Amino acid sequence: MRALLFDVFGTVVDWRGTVIREGEALAMRRGWPVDRVDWAAFADRWRKEGYTAALARITRGEEPWARVDDLHRRMLDTLLHEHGIRDLDEPAVAQLNRVWHRLTPWPDALAGLERLQRRYTVAPLSNGDFALLTNMAKHAALPWDCILSAELFGAYKQRPEVYLGAVQLLGIAPAEALMVAAHPSDLDAARAAGLRTAYVPRPLEFGAPTTEPQGVTSPLPSRFDVIADDFLALAAALGC
Amino acid sequence: MRALLFDVFGTVVDWRGTVIREGEALAMRRGWPVDRVDWAAFADRWRKEGYTAALARITRGEEPWARVDDLHRRMLDTLLHEHGIRDLDEPAVAQLNRVWHRLTPWPDALAGLERLQRRYTVAPLSNGDFALLTNMAKHAALPWDCILSAELFGAYKQRPEVYLGAVQLLGIAPAEALMVAAHPSDLDAARAAGLRTAYVPRPLEFGAPTTEPQGVTSPLPSRFDVIADDFLALAAALGC
Repeated sequence: MRALLFDVFGTVVDWRGTVIREGEALAMRRGWPVDRVDWAAFADRWRKEGYTAALARITRGEEPWARVDDLHRRMLDTLLHEHGIRDLDEPAVAQLNRVWHRLTPWPDALAGLERLQRRYTVAPLSNGDFALLTNMAKHAALPWDCILSAELFGAYKQRPEVYLGAVQLLGIAPAEALMVAAHPSDLDAARAAGLRTAYVPRPLEFGAPTTEPQGVTSPLPSRFDVIADDFLALAAALGC
Repeated sequence: MRALLFDVFGTVVDWRGTVIREGEALAMRRGWPVDRVDWAAFADRWRKEGYTAALARITRGEEPWARVDDLHRRMLDTLLHEHGIRDLDEPAVAQLNRVWHRLTPWPDALAGLERLQRRYTVAPLSNGDFALLTNMAKHAALPWDCILSAELFGAYKQRPEVYLGAVQLLGIAPAEALMVAAHPSDLDAARAAGLRTAYVPRPLEFGAPTTEPQGVTSPLPSRFDVIADDFLALAAALGC
């Protein structure tokens, strides 16, 4: 095995917690009433309707390709309108939209990646835009060896060309890459493309802990090559 | 200005010195007669005929696109044949071909890049393959924020789509990027695409120091935005 490819949103970074924290800080700076925005619900809808559902429509061919920054912005405009927020000027809205470039890693992520990076090529393989992932890495000091974004392949995960395009760029065979994700559906698609898979559950991704990982329909050990509680456990499992 | 894009071969790393050193070490390990290979001449032909001339033919449309690794290998096979070297097996030839993944930075490069990286997004923008540049960065600890390779755009510098594709992926305007190179022709092409330019001469790139930089046909100060003796001087010039 030569390269580890990481899903990012939810697997490396806590998108929900970061959006909530930035939203609450913005509301406090602006002096908004505390109940004007439920930032947890705001974050969840931004993610679910503005990103997940939009990517699914693009993947089904119902909408043309669009960058994630633009998809996020479209939903943000809707959310701000629905909340009656009119006191943010264009730079402030653009700055809020770029919260997705400033997401905070899970507590184990940096230390785990640093251990893994000593032995393997480590890279994101995310649906996030190339610039978004580059800015996020710089902001959070993620020690990636290169940035791999679905944008490079003109298709979003779980389309096979994303996984196959990534290993081709790295000059390795699919079986020489390990896809690391908190989402079984991502790993199943990677496995179908010939990659190895590591499942790192992130039970707090959607807020309250869930006892059952989403989308798991068959016993985990029989589907994935590695299962680890976090990136430190992953490093240990891989002998780093 | 938000991003600095670096030419790599000759600007960041000393390809000639590295090939000579690795070649001499190989000859010593194998016990070859000292005069069997003139490694400086070997390096120069490998570069000039195997890379520069091949890229020019591809850019003129005379040959189909090929990866730099494969172009290097083609010329290496020719050179080994001409030198009557038959005692290298396939793994040894492949290992020698990958010397281009292990090039040594110029003495100022790492320290300069580390200073520049604190303030700007820094990335290679090289004709080297994506995997080659990723492996080189890992080998030499180059602090790139992302890897940008001509391979991503299916064309080699000095085609404008390489410079324009790079700034598009970074989500910035051409004028927000500074192309850094030891080769005026690269900078002229970047400037034509709307990028800013920094000229860092590397007088030892081709061995004996030259007093005149290659390809300079008009006064330097009027053509480039910055001129610096090395990456430390560049960092100082940019206030890092």
